[in-house]
Amino acid sequence: VTPTAVPSGSALLPALWIDGEPCQVDGPHISAADRGLLLADGVFETMRVQNGVVFRLDRHLARLEHGLAVLGIPLRRELRGWLLDAVASAGRVDAGLRLTVTRGVGAGGVAPQGDVRPTVIVAIGPLPVFAPEIFDRGLAAHVASGRRNERAMTAGLKTLAFTDAVAAMMEARRSGADESLFLDSDGHCSEATASNLFIWTGVELLTPPLSCGPLPGITRAAVLEVASALHIPAEERPFDLERLLRADEAFLTSSLRGLTPLVRVNGRPIGHGVPGAVSRRLTAAYAGLLARECGDPRP
Amino acid sequence: VTPTAVPSGSALLPALWIDGEPCQVDGPHISAADRGLLLADGVFETMRVQNGVVFRLDRHLARLEHGLAVLGIPLRRELRGWLLDAVASAGRVDAGLRLTVTRGVGAGGVAPQGDVRPTVIVAIGPLPVFAPEIFDRGLAAHVASGRRNERAMTAGLKTLAFTDAVAAMMEARRSGADESLFLDSDGHCSEATASNLFIWTGVELLTPPLSCGPLPGITRAAVLEVASALHIPAEERPFDLERLLRADEAFLTSSLRGLTPLVRVNGRPIGHGVPGAVSRRLTAAYAGLLARECGDPRP
Repeated sequence: VTPTAVPSGSALLPALWIDGEPCQVDGPHISAADRGLLLADGVFETMRVQNGVVFRLDRHLARLEHGLAVLGIPLRRELRGWLLDAVASAGRVDAGLRLTVTRGVGAGGVAPQGDVRPTVIVAIGPLPVFAPEIFDRGLAAHVASGRRNERAMTAGLKTLAFTDAVAAMMEARRSGADESLFLDSDGHCSEATASNLFIWTGVELLTPPLSCGPLPGITRAAVLEVASALHIPAEERPFDLERLLRADEAFLTSSLRGLTPLVRVNGRPIGHGVPGAVSRRLTAAYAGLLARECGDPRP
Repeated sequence: VTPTAVPSGSALLPALWIDGEPCQVDGPHISAADRGLLLADGVFETMRVQNGVVFRLDRHLARLEHGLAVLGIPLRRELRGWLLDAVASAGRVDAGLRLTVTRGVGAGGVAPQGDVRPTVIVAIGPLPVFAPEIFDRGLAAHVASGRRNERAMTAGLKTLAFTDAVAAMMEARRSGADESLFLDSDGHCSEATASNLFIWTGVELLTPPLSCGPLPGITRAAVLEVASALHIPAEERPFDLERLLRADEAFLTSSLRGLTPLVRVNGRPIGHGVPGAVSRRLTAAYAGLLARECGDPRP
């Protein structure tokens, strides 16, 4: 059983907390003048909860706090406690957790004005489930017609501004693909719509460096650790689409879905067009790391 | 009196409608699972209401509908009627109107799933007011450290993804400037955080073409019309920062604020460092156009 296939352990999910208070899942919850809605003025994290434990919570919170600092959104000190209380009340579940922090309700102009109190939303729900055969057959990706901007003000931050990712995903679905890959403005591979990209060249594992605009994924970092432990050479180094198409294997990583094999790009097979042996070894090792760090006793 | 200095004509503002229903301004109004908040999955327009009439409503709605079509968000046919009812109930005001359309409440993943009903928000409020001296002394701008992405999936669309603009504005304020200017990935001037850029070279008026990534502003188009009527040569043509710094005059345009003189960039004066004669002529002519089209009898 791969970790991404673990079913939710609680019938009470989804569950929602705003500023530490539990809420009915049916809305409304948020002001129409919240700058998170008006201007995507905020950041978020999606985290994997396994056995009731958030995997690498500290790294997620560090990334979130960095994003808040860049945007000049004050940190609410209660945030970590609210999140842990929410997780505790959800029980010993396997779940997905989304933490969203917006600048809060404020004036509609671009410039924040006066004292604004950030809005903190914690939502816990079932893990997104791919059809299990995805892990056997792998994903097909389309290369997005628009580029990732590695020189954006917010490059590398997980802001609420996912509109380009949504548009790229719609484009992928129209072309019959499952996912979309972004190139950066120089034509290097960057990332998928909400996951990092890895390739196995036959001699080393490569993932785009942060200079190519991907998010510094928590699972990306974990896979680099796992590769090191397995003595699989791994490096952050730019590569272009042509190099991806010549790779022996490719896979995507995200907190909620772990590793997902990528077997076709723009209709052309990667390697043999099926999930490869290195991807499978890394998937198993990552599942072990996740279970170990989350104190999951299940085999 | 320039149109941007007209005070609000109603004590009832701000006022809010969601899906055509009037709402209390104090929230909550929106679900925490609205994809507008989760992923900036939506578009908006800000419009100028003068004398109770929306200036160039059809152009705003056409731009919005184009954005919805690109994102694959269905158009709610009631939208125009809801907006007009809201304006009518606000009375014969001078105001700012924001129309926001999100994909609606849906699954949290990037890919929209199933039938989602778009959320339509109409907010009418007082016009944003600059201190009147801004029109005498002009704005100072900072050049943003991050670039505009003219090759983004959503380049030229007014999506909810304004996080980069917010970050650039915060950076400008930290540097003591009023506004931030974006260069595109090739180093051409693109636009400000929420307004278009014009320069007067001494012989012609220039504004960046859409290939440099600016929004196709409604006021930008109106200024090009007004220039033509005044026999002022005007063209959409790329120019770089160096050309801006050598300009005789510069100004910004937006629906809510009209024309605003730009007199300093990165601490260096544009022309004589004060609002120029061509900017003043265009401002007066634009005010006349606005009053005429809105049937405003005031002098």
